[in-house]
Amino acid sequence: MPGNPAVPVAGNRFCIVGGASLVGSATAGELLDHGAAEVVLFDNFAFGSDAAIAHLKDHPRLRLVRGDVMRMANLLRATEGMAGVLQLAAYMTLSMDRDPWGGLDVNIRGVQNALEACRANKVQKVVFASSNAVYGYGPGVSGDLVEGTPFHSVGAPPAAILYGASKIIGEQLCRDAFRKWGQDYVILRYSTVYGERQHYRAANALYIIETYDAVRRGEAPKVFGDGSETKHFVYVGDLARANRMAFESQATDVAVNTSGPAPITTLELVRLVTELAGGGPEPIFVGNEPGKVRLTSGGAFRIAHEEAFRAIGWTPEVDMKEGLRRLIAWRESNEGRAAA
Amino acid sequence: MPGNPAVPVAGNRFCIVGGASLVGSATAGELLDHGAAEVVLFDNFAFGSDAAIAHLKDHPRLRLVRGDVMRMANLLRATEGMAGVLQLAAYMTLSMDRDPWGGLDVNIRGVQNALEACRANKVQKVVFASSNAVYGYGPGVSGDLVEGTPFHSVGAPPAAILYGASKIIGEQLCRDAFRKWGQDYVILRYSTVYGERQHYRAANALYIIETYDAVRRGEAPKVFGDGSETKHFVYVGDLARANRMAFESQATDVAVNTSGPAPITTLELVRLVTELAGGGPEPIFVGNEPGKVRLTSGGAFRIAHEEAFRAIGWTPEVDMKEGLRRLIAWRESNEGRAAA
Repeated sequence: MPGNPAVPVAGNRFCIVGGASLVGSATAGELLDHGAAEVVLFDNFAFGSDAAIAHLKDHPRLRLVRGDVMRMANLLRATEGMAGVLQLAAYMTLSMDRDPWGGLDVNIRGVQNALEACRANKVQKVVFASSNAVYGYGPGVSGDLVEGTPFHSVGAPPAAILYGASKIIGEQLCRDAFRKWGQDYVILRYSTVYGERQHYRAANALYIIETYDAVRRGEAPKVFGDGSETKHFVYVGDLARANRMAFESQATDVAVNTSGPAPITTLELVRLVTELAGGGPEPIFVGNEPGKVRLTSGGAFRIAHEEAFRAIGWTPEVDMKEGLRRLIAWRESNEGRAAA
Repeated sequence: MPGNPAVPVAGNRFCIVGGASLVGSATAGELLDHGAAEVVLFDNFAFGSDAAIAHLKDHPRLRLVRGDVMRMANLLRATEGMAGVLQLAAYMTLSMDRDPWGGLDVNIRGVQNALEACRANKVQKVVFASSNAVYGYGPGVSGDLVEGTPFHSVGAPPAAILYGASKIIGEQLCRDAFRKWGQDYVILRYSTVYGERQHYRAANALYIIETYDAVRRGEAPKVFGDGSETKHFVYVGDLARANRMAFESQATDVAVNTSGPAPITTLELVRLVTELAGGGPEPIFVGNEPGKVRLTSGGAFRIAHEEAFRAIGWTPEVDMKEGLRRLIAWRESNEGRAAA
């Protein structure tokens, strides 16, 4: 029915823009498991990888389309006949630092292009992958981060602010599309994702893998600062479920946080990874490494996800211990070893 | 001397990107009065106008270059041999609402292009026109707005947030250029500009002219809400001086507010304009007009300009009464009547 923002997954077709990725592949699996008629993974393989989708690529209802979000023609073809589009394609902070021109193109013009393609093809609903980076960085970021928390930037490196501001702009482009042509959408503000098929691109998630690798080599894991710095991760399977529920729910014209059950300090994280690795040396406390982009927040914070429950009925289910256990089990599998 | 961020105005050449404008023409006059060897006004005349520069166009040391910030070739030619570049070209909120694609291009890619052109031509210093829009809108914006105040967006229309976020990105591109290739720059966060050669494009400044026009027609001026809403304007001549001082000062890698002596409430503003117009009907209090983009702030705020004094020695000199007197005198002149 036209004008109904709820898009059932079973029997419908979905396109995941930036699909050859950690979140893209997990979401494709989730949508296929729930009866999607087809899932199109659209990717230019600049950051996406064959490894991220190797386990899915022979699925009969999955189609891989090589294309670029900067090319309208590619997007117009890929989104034809789709009931829903998940817009994931983005540069994150590390790549934004290396190539701000490319990053701003993809994170801003790429979102505009995707929205225009959805308009042209009458796609019912867009789910846009935003980030808790819309709350920014630095000492101002503390306490409960709720959907109305402003964007802090004092003390943050340019690339991090560029990333956060580009996500703010992507969100507003969705709001503008809703106002101007009634495009239904849900924005999910992902916190840092981790899990099976973990990649090496995201500054915070990378830290988990680096820590694990160090412990496995018998080296002491590094803790930056005093270890009290907060991180709030979300398990990739929980995010895949959030993406599916965003399509299925009646919600539209809304932005909500999707974070894991609870935050963790850096020291707690390192201890947990060490324990799951079967033990290892005590961590060493070090200063910042020069030349490396690191994202520091002020003190303790928690990314509140209660709004996501109200809007789309979602709440995270996998805690850090279980999520890390799954990540490490994958890492030790043939697939994980091949990916490393 | 290389590496000295102070660029004397006398004897040097300057390019003003987006120069056929209120601030551009005033700054050109200021730089020429202080002995600049040449001032290039670069504009595509999308928003700029011949009227804004008619009084200057026969100046022997002024050169008008028609060109577009989206065309690198145009910028590379215009910035050749320049000691300083003032980057003014931008869409503001009203035009961002009509054309977000064009606005994001100019406000983001345009700034990247200008910085790249400055790098190629070894321009010593860039002054970037940012905005108090980097503090955002809505009820969160109150009290003293200082350079570290975060970006608030709850309750603001998409176009306003796009504008503010695009200015945040422009600022970070300057910071990135400083870090990556040592580009000296000063960011001035302009508050709403008004003064002679006032145009009809900016949501807040427009209100002054609309009010004056209504009073002159014998109509009651409109006050939106209860009239207690704060505005903090800056007189265009003060801004022209700030731009000059930003070039001349030792300051680099810094962003400061440039606002007028004090904020004013909407009701005070209407009473002042009515008084300067020689009297008129009492204002009427009205609700918001549907379909019109209006920028509302929460309660009382003040844009603090003390940092600008510390960084570049600037402080505003023209208060609202004097600035409005000058604006109205211009408006009643032959030039002002022709422009209306």
